[in-house]
Amino acid sequence: MPGATDQTLRPFLWRAQKMFPDREVVSRTHEGVQRYTYAEYGDRVAQLANALSAAGLGDGDRVGTFCWNHHRHFETYFGVPSMGAQLHTINPLLPDHHVQYIVENAADRLLFVDPSLVEKLDEAYDEEAFASVEQFVVMGEEVPDTDLSPVTDYESFLADEDAAYDWPDLSEDQPAGMCYTSGTTGKPKGVEYTQQMLWAHTMASLPEAGLDLRSSDVVMPVVPMFHVNAWGMPFSTTAAGAKHVYPGPSPTPADLASLIEEEGVTLTAGVPTVWLGLLDYLEENDADMSSLETIVIGGSAAPQSVIRRFDEEYDVDVLHAWGMTEMSPIGTVARLKPGMESLPKDQQYDKQAKQGLLIPGLEMRVVDDDGEEVPWNGEDFGELWVRGPWVTTEYFERPEANQEDFEDNWLKTGDVVTVDEEGYVKIVDRAKDVIKSGGEWISSVELENTLMANDGVAEATVVGVPHERWQERPVAFVVPAAGTDEDALKAELVEMVKAEFPKWWAPDEVVFIEEVPKTATGKFDKKVLRDQYDDQSLVEGKTPEDAAPDADD
Amino acid sequence: MPGATDQTLRPFLWRAQKMFPDREVVSRTHEGVQRYTYAEYGDRVAQLANALSAAGLGDGDRVGTFCWNHHRHFETYFGVPSMGAQLHTINPLLPDHHVQYIVENAADRLLFVDPSLVEKLDEAYDEEAFASVEQFVVMGEEVPDTDLSPVTDYESFLADEDAAYDWPDLSEDQPAGMCYTSGTTGKPKGVEYTQQMLWAHTMASLPEAGLDLRSSDVVMPVVPMFHVNAWGMPFSTTAAGAKHVYPGPSPTPADLASLIEEEGVTLTAGVPTVWLGLLDYLEENDADMSSLETIVIGGSAAPQSVIRRFDEEYDVDVLHAWGMTEMSPIGTVARLKPGMESLPKDQQYDKQAKQGLLIPGLEMRVVDDDGEEVPWNGEDFGELWVRGPWVTTEYFERPEANQEDFEDNWLKTGDVVTVDEEGYVKIVDRAKDVIKSGGEWISSVELENTLMANDGVAEATVVGVPHERWQERPVAFVVPAAGTDEDALKAELVEMVKAEFPKWWAPDEVVFIEEVPKTATGKFDKKVLRDQYDDQSLVEGKTPEDAAPDADD
Repeated sequence: MPGATDQTLRPFLWRAQKMFPDREVVSRTHEGVQRYTYAEYGDRVAQLANALSAAGLGDGDRVGTFCWNHHRHFETYFGVPSMGAQLHTINPLLPDHHVQYIVENAADRLLFVDPSLVEKLDEAYDEEAFASVEQFVVMGEEVPDTDLSPVTDYESFLADEDAAYDWPDLSEDQPAGMCYTSGTTGKPKGVEYTQQMLWAHTMASLPEAGLDLRSSDVVMPVVPMFHVNAWGMPFSTTAAGAKHVYPGPSPTPADLASLIEEEGVTLTAGVPTVWLGLLDYLEENDADMSSLETIVIGGSAAPQSVIRRFDEEYDVDVLHAWGMTEMSPIGTVARLKPGMESLPKDQQYDKQAKQGLLIPGLEMRVVDDDGEEVPWNGEDFGELWVRGPWVTTEYFERPEANQEDFEDNWLKTGDVVTVDEEGYVKIVDRAKDVIKSGGEWISSVELENTLMANDGVAEATVVGVPHERWQERPVAFVVPAAGTDEDALKAELVEMVKAEFPKWWAPDEVVFIEEVPKTATGKFDKKVLRDQYDDQSLVEGKTPEDAAPDADD
Repeated sequence: MPGATDQTLRPFLWRAQKMFPDREVVSRTHEGVQRYTYAEYGDRVAQLANALSAAGLGDGDRVGTFCWNHHRHFETYFGVPSMGAQLHTINPLLPDHHVQYIVENAADRLLFVDPSLVEKLDEAYDEEAFASVEQFVVMGEEVPDTDLSPVTDYESFLADEDAAYDWPDLSEDQPAGMCYTSGTTGKPKGVEYTQQMLWAHTMASLPEAGLDLRSSDVVMPVVPMFHVNAWGMPFSTTAAGAKHVYPGPSPTPADLASLIEEEGVTLTAGVPTVWLGLLDYLEENDADMSSLETIVIGGSAAPQSVIRRFDEEYDVDVLHAWGMTEMSPIGTVARLKPGMESLPKDQQYDKQAKQGLLIPGLEMRVVDDDGEEVPWNGEDFGELWVRGPWVTTEYFERPEANQEDFEDNWLKTGDVVTVDEEGYVKIVDRAKDVIKSGGEWISSVELENTLMANDGVAEATVVGVPHERWQERPVAFVVPAAGTDEDALKAELVEMVKAEFPKWWAPDEVVFIEEVPKTATGKFDKKVLRDQYDDQSLVEGKTPEDAAPDADD
């Protein structure tokens, strides 16, 4: 069979070291801002690989990290997988029992941990769950007080090692990375990334249709390196030969502004709240943002107001992206197409606020309950299914979840979306939250947005509750603003919905509550409301005449 | 084993069809300039796949093309491999016996042939060699007078077919393409491209470090589609969602200028002579080149004067690229690094005239006769070895050639190069032409360039001839310009070489000849000269005292 050599991360490291030896890696750490070049980075990565080999680690062994974004964490990104081991990045914000489950499930043999997270790991430590862990390495120059054992500091771990390593020829099927989904319900599910998946995702991140990374770029991933490889940017930035800036532990908006200004950051990336915080900071403080060209926003939907403010006030392009742990993670990017730059700004922002266009190399379908593809008209919606060379086809040791979330190598994303005529995907709901009424789907998110636009509403959430005839019907749970007339508000809200959507989208009930129950991560906990309402399941007689889906709507 | 779906061409076709349905494919054909959209392109590609299926073709069958650059040829690029068959592009400029060898070796079952090439194929036809060919399809609306049989025209072949095709899930190891190297000596060697190799090469072509293709680009490959997939541009242009312009059979400089002007071409690509021709044309004729941003030059070295003229006179960036049939084909691209744009123009042109930087995803080494890597100092040279996901590791059914040209999955390119401190590769010779003297290498190409800079020299070539003590010594064969004093010229030439290179590079002999023998493709035929000189092998006594490699030089 004809063929070529395997797709692995090694060439990216090699190329940066050899062709961009003087480009910098800058890192804000517990010890202050540090900087070195790709040449030195390559030396230290080789030292790390030698240290891991000396510690008896090798082919297929899992190495966990419990770290923020800094150069040492970045060293593990190439050092661990390129010597044949598997980099398992652990989210230190998870509850202790999840950390325990993850470490036990992955059977990590060595754990790298940040000085500021040693205490947290001490708390999460459980002898049985951590039975596989043979060594702890603290990411600094010394070891703080801890019960973790045996433990050493990173600089001592590397100190005596050679700065050259004979990187092996790995198979592209070799597991290189691992990350657990932090689902709000159930146990976290492990996703393994092969060398090939990370190679393919890196190559796909580089062009215009991805993140458009160039060797002249200065890239600062604010998204944590434990969140799906910081969206792959440590790899793609290296492949581009660009400069890295890592913001370290718990960066404040002032830290970010100062790094952008001092290091000439051109592209940065993170969740919306980070950028809201930066906008607020910039209103009160002077900082030179002129180097900044692009902010990649993902993790949750980028509010259009954020896109607008960065464009109008700072001439910064917000690039809205969507992905999943299961997708290494990038799937779509909301870049404007040629010609769209002449549209009115509002229409441009509308496109940019969508999740965007699937990037080259992937395929998608949007299917209704019967598995039929829905038309691309910006209105019909269905569940988004995705497949491609950096989309996993299974979870680690979770056959029951595999049955639920995959079909014929398609990943069922659990996101309910519309696709417009130009191919821009927009998430309208989560599959578990969409309300299925009379064979049609109602978006709980769109109803919530409409309700919350009313000044009389402090908070609102809409859930589907069981209904004998229509299967489900929407019920709104509303926290009224202080001093609101509830009866008047109720009528007003129903009218608002009917004005904007088909009449049968109007909630059958508007229930006033004191507070919307929230999950540990602050999201609306619809499950609690659904359970509360279950006993009062709607009966047919309570449904308004015009609640049925109607072809005329 | 964890994994994702296979890397195939299908997603590129799907994405262009669905997300850029209105972008155009423009084609200059025998019937005039034609244009349609990706939407129509997708329909026709599906029709083609249905027609091929109806003709009994499928998994693993080879389909040959004998065609120029036009939309129908482009339809075979996705239609043939995406239905599971293998696209074998045949160079119609080859001598008949090579065409026969190639068709027989590949066992093509169907041949697509251009109307203007039917006569040529008629001549090349040989019943035994073409025994595998079951059908000929002429790329047009009618069939010219021909003995080829059975034969039909392409539009009839497609006419009754459905414009939808259920594209199969192919393995990434499936052979998708095939091209033969047109070596000047020996039989052509077949290179097979798997779906994965073409996928990887496409992804690698898109970013800045490759061709930097964007959806707003208008791409015109002048390099023939039978030359290693037109450097992959039909695939990469589609993946980018850019507009295609195909210049059709035998385009003149006037045709190219007119297509650039009328279609707004932003990026075009071809061998140096094409662009010399265009420069000459533009000196005498008015044409608006303002849309043109980049000319990719490959196939042979881009003269620095061409790079300079396009920059100074037309503000067009020449992107010098190097590759091989064995490499799908792109390996290096001479793009300037960040900061280099502030260098004096001459230094920029020096960099751009080199073959450039290896693109991300590949690895290379430059080795001397002992297999040791030579330093990257812009002076030491050795043979370039390359490996990576779009570099083949074998020839089709040629075990003896495999032994010679591959080692441990490295492709020995046969090019002798220097690499400078910044990683820019420069070809200084072919391995078979480099002169090996006393354990050191002398570049025949650099000597030739120096000799030809003398006004008294019409043509010159330098070959290594066997030498008892030094293994080989350079001998220059010079065609003097009319009226030159040969004795004075000889002394002058030796001095010129000594002034520019180590003294032991000076040719031991300068032999005046009437004409440099040439190969069928117009290149200097050094083999003839070597054979002629063989009887007069140099003896030790004839070597000048200072001809030995000297550590002081």
